[in-house]
Amino acid sequence: MKLEIVTIGTELLLGYTVDSNAAELGRALAAAGAEITRRVTVGDRPEAIRAAVTEALERTGFVLTTGGLGPTRDDMTKTVVAELFGKRLVLDEGLLAGIEARFQRLGRPMPAVNRTQAEVPEGATILPNPRGTAPGLWIEDARGRVAVLLPGVPREMRGLLVEEVLPRLVRRDSTGARPRVVLSRTVRTTGVPESALAERLGSIEVEIAPLTLAYLPSTDGVDLRVTAWSLEQGDAEMRLATAAARLQQLAGEHWYGDDGADLAAVVLQALRRKRHRLGIAESCTGGMVAERITNIPGASDTFIGGVVAYADVIKTAALKVPLDTLQAHGSVSEETVRAMAEGAQRLFSTEASIAVTGIAGPGGGTPEKPVGTVWLAARVQTDTRTVKRVLPGDREEVRRRGAQAALDLLRRLLARA
Amino acid sequence: MKLEIVTIGTELLLGYTVDSNAAELGRALAAAGAEITRRVTVGDRPEAIRAAVTEALERTGFVLTTGGLGPTRDDMTKTVVAELFGKRLVLDEGLLAGIEARFQRLGRPMPAVNRTQAEVPEGATILPNPRGTAPGLWIEDARGRVAVLLPGVPREMRGLLVEEVLPRLVRRDSTGARPRVVLSRTVRTTGVPESALAERLGSIEVEIAPLTLAYLPSTDGVDLRVTAWSLEQGDAEMRLATAAARLQQLAGEHWYGDDGADLAAVVLQALRRKRHRLGIAESCTGGMVAERITNIPGASDTFIGGVVAYADVIKTAALKVPLDTLQAHGSVSEETVRAMAEGAQRLFSTEASIAVTGIAGPGGGTPEKPVGTVWLAARVQTDTRTVKRVLPGDREEVRRRGAQAALDLLRRLLARA
Repeated sequence: MKLEIVTIGTELLLGYTVDSNAAELGRALAAAGAEITRRVTVGDRPEAIRAAVTEALERTGFVLTTGGLGPTRDDMTKTVVAELFGKRLVLDEGLLAGIEARFQRLGRPMPAVNRTQAEVPEGATILPNPRGTAPGLWIEDARGRVAVLLPGVPREMRGLLVEEVLPRLVRRDSTGARPRVVLSRTVRTTGVPESALAERLGSIEVEIAPLTLAYLPSTDGVDLRVTAWSLEQGDAEMRLATAAARLQQLAGEHWYGDDGADLAAVVLQALRRKRHRLGIAESCTGGMVAERITNIPGASDTFIGGVVAYADVIKTAALKVPLDTLQAHGSVSEETVRAMAEGAQRLFSTEASIAVTGIAGPGGGTPEKPVGTVWLAARVQTDTRTVKRVLPGDREEVRRRGAQAALDLLRRLLARA
Repeated sequence: MKLEIVTIGTELLLGYTVDSNAAELGRALAAAGAEITRRVTVGDRPEAIRAAVTEALERTGFVLTTGGLGPTRDDMTKTVVAELFGKRLVLDEGLLAGIEARFQRLGRPMPAVNRTQAEVPEGATILPNPRGTAPGLWIEDARGRVAVLLPGVPREMRGLLVEEVLPRLVRRDSTGARPRVVLSRTVRTTGVPESALAERLGSIEVEIAPLTLAYLPSTDGVDLRVTAWSLEQGDAEMRLATAAARLQQLAGEHWYGDDGADLAAVVLQALRRKRHRLGIAESCTGGMVAERITNIPGASDTFIGGVVAYADVIKTAALKVPLDTLQAHGSVSEETVRAMAEGAQRLFSTEASIAVTGIAGPGGGTPEKPVGTVWLAARVQTDTRTVKRVLPGDREEVRRRGAQAALDLLRRLLARA
């Protein structure tokens, strides 16, 4: 089945909010076998919402909207879509009671504006939203046209999507025999540029047809995304598995995982297999490497702790980097990063450690050590590997690339050991 | 002037890439006086690109696209738009020489596929892209319709936008007298829920008309975005300044900054004014508070260092939290967070410190201390303030909200001291 997404909010057009819902919807709907043919964003203006929803319904008969269901005056999606479907808004007593109870639990009186959130288009199916006050709505007319309205708050949207919308879509779709799906797999690489990777993969596109291949570069590396369009489920899965295995093989040592794989989780898993614990010492990344590691649920069995040694005095005091080393080679040097990795291993009594020191910019660069210069170290038992990188981009990008490269250095060292 | 944006990439529809370019474009174009009336995303399919660009040109006569200009086979924006404008693709020798030189500098041979990136629609203006191999293109026809094609890689897109596209737009627009602009300002609040804030602001929407107000909740807090639509520049700026001042006054102590203000930068600035340096001790946020602080350029004059005390042994060893305290009250308690703040102050020899300990989930919760329970401390000289919060959301959200709340606690303490 095909559908279109309309995300609503002036803040999205003006760019003050990144539309993370759109990506979330894309992944979930594609996995459920729905093909999103277009995504449109319009502002909080009734005529713009009306036009976008009308056109989407004309093209596919099925539209999913996010945003504009809140209690404030800029929220008007429900009113516009109800009008479009020729339905009036009626107060739902059950919803009202639920919203009142929610405020009671939070120990606050219900503001009067929240009452409008209990109004629904006549005949609409209410999709309960335990995470917020605005329920989702499923509106269908006699011609079979469907509009699904979800709130814009990401965690509420996500909950409603998984618990209410996807099960209904799958039931709806399974009336026909052998439904066709759009499925994708991603093969993740890092430490290799896009065009070098393309050369390495050669004419893989011909080999994997009718699957398609996209190169997706980011600060994490280059993802290879292979997609099956409208194939029968079993066939799609088999072809994708074959293509992913082939891509992994061609990518070689640059491959670190598939699909949503996070390099931090890959490193944690490799450490766990060897019963190694991890300590981290970082300077220019300022906590980002530790943050990446602790973002993984269950990291506490392997990760002991980290030091953000931002001032040089902390490099000597906490990590015991010799003052001589700092003075002779500078804080961004192979000698210093090596001493930081040894210091972290000692301080946290771990088998493995990571260290990063560099110049993230915008200031602090010199002709010999320009902005973007980063020294990285990974240490396992008594074996240390160091590498220097000159990373492109602004402060944020240098830090992200530096954190990823540091994790990757430990991954490669663990793979070899 | 009005325009529409078309972002191109199957990975955007499938949700494997968050469309950060769209937000970036929104902010920059609105600031330059252009009104984005719609944003459309389509996949890497010629017919979908053709339809979206054609419709956008019909509605506004001006379309800006991102994506599909790379060297690989899934990149077809240039071909489709050239065809739409009735122009053939011709090889530009200057571009080719530039791309070849770029590869030479990187010390790698130019892959053959990169040659197609030197082809441009006849008569198009080439927008030089020093950050990558795909130039931007400005295509205009005899009827005055314009298509601007930019690459999808964010840093390349951003550079071309600022250096090449915006100056041309402003020149183009200034032919008419007294151009009208769309301008916004944001007033940022944290530590107060959306509906409580709405009650507090009362009928502010009536007061600030014709400006519009949007409430934008996120893990950082609730942003209040006020927008002037199509007013003369001076008038818009004056009305926005008045409205922003009024919103700030009504938000009171919950207000921490305007527009792009980052709470970490606000806290750093407040510390600098008092000549206080900062040390950080964090557990469940795992480096995120330090990462927020070090993300601000120049943080090194104020931030000395941080400890990610993930294992309890590090809380006692590095931060000197008494073992008695940990055993009697647990690692997530007022007593522990207070000792962590004192320990960070001592370890880093700073006047101010922040400490965070909590249960980010998904595991580790108990009936007394459910997932989301976070104890925060801020300390300035000998004055410590602690607070407990039970934060909603998943692991990632609890961590983000916890880091923001920790920074906010120090902000409030510094404001009072």
